Amino acid sequence: MAPIARVCFAGGQSGQWRVERIQAVTGEALPPVTHVAMLPSPEGTTKIDGSVWTLRGTAGHVRYVERSEKLALQSIQAGLGRPEATRAALIPIRKSGAWWDLAQDERRSIFEGVSHHTAVGLEYLPAVARRLFQSRELGEPFDFLTWFEYAPAHADRFEELVARLRATEEWRYVDREVDIRLSRVQDG
Amino acid sequence: MAPIARVCFAGGQSGQWRVERIQAVTGEALPPVTHVAMLPSPEGTTKIDGSVWTLRGTAGHVRYVERSEKLALQSIQAGLGRPEATRAALIPIRKSGAWWDLAQDERRSIFEGVSHHTAVGLEYLPAVARRLFQSRELGEPFDFLTWFEYAPAHADRFEELVARLRATEEWRYVDREVDIRLSRVQDG
Repeated sequence: MAPIARVCFAGGQSGQWRVERIQAVTGEALPPVTHVAMLPSPEGTTKIDGSVWTLRGTAGHVRYVERSEKLALQSIQAGLGRPEATRAALIPIRKSGAWWDLAQDERRSIFEGVSHHTAVGLEYLPAVARRLFQSRELGEPFDFLTWFEYAPAHADRFEELVARLRATEEWRYVDREVDIRLSRVQDG
Repeated sequence: MAPIARVCFAGGQSGQWRVERIQAVTGEALPPVTHVAMLPSPEGTTKIDGSVWTLRGTAGHVRYVERSEKLALQSIQAGLGRPEATRAALIPIRKSGAWWDLAQDERRSIFEGVSHHTAVGLEYLPAVARRLFQSRELGEPFDFLTWFEYAPAHADRFEELVARLRATEEWRYVDREVDIRLSRVQDG
């Protein structure tokens, strides 16, 4: 079986990403930091030494995406670490108890049937590379860590993607969201 | 938001459940122990002191169950710790990479459309109390810890349930399974 990739984002004074801004969109903010490091997550470690905060997640299987959507995503997915993608966003999200109490078909219906989450995201590929990390099962303060990488030329497109997702029915279940914008450190 | 319950099963020489037998059904066995303790899982702890093995999991949201099934399950669900339920089974399960590579609709189709997992389980409620704990995101050796409690009078019914689930299409994706049968320690 393919092992699950475990990552962590360590906010502090060092890392390959410089913080441009941290904004509390919904609920409690995160303490300000100047840099974020994206690292493999050591087993059993809940906080990286020297960090102000550490957010952990796992890159697992898809939860709502269906066969046809998965094939579409795979055909157009952009990789991380593209040289031109010098901008990034780390947007940790928590959903309410009302969301998690829904049955699978109800969540899927809101996710795609009403909110068109996957369909909207597809429109911005491959310009905006996206990754989703699951945190809920790890007992973390957020349920998901969403990660985006894009070139400065696509910054407006990225703002449009974020605005469209925040306007969806699905986002009514988000009860904490912090938006962290980043630039890659030169020669970092 | 309701916190996620984290549990662990510690196999060793003490605990409220005495081991009647441990059987490797598929793949690698677990080392033999005489007792199993079911405990709240301390944050950051991967192994309980004095245990031979510790298996950790979280009781989260449903992954495949739809609205009508969730209502049916809730209406008939049996609680844990019933005085008459002196028998238990801990059956940790791992599914293959082929399973996790499937899209959500494909997994749902095998889980319920073909294998009738929820429907079969409903037939044995409330005699057999069931709980499912997720382990995959924790980096554990198994993906799920399934837990059953039942009265000795329902032991044959429980064997029938296990046999029916193992005969399903879904079980073709199980690549490791250990079956641990337990009896509650008197005055434990």
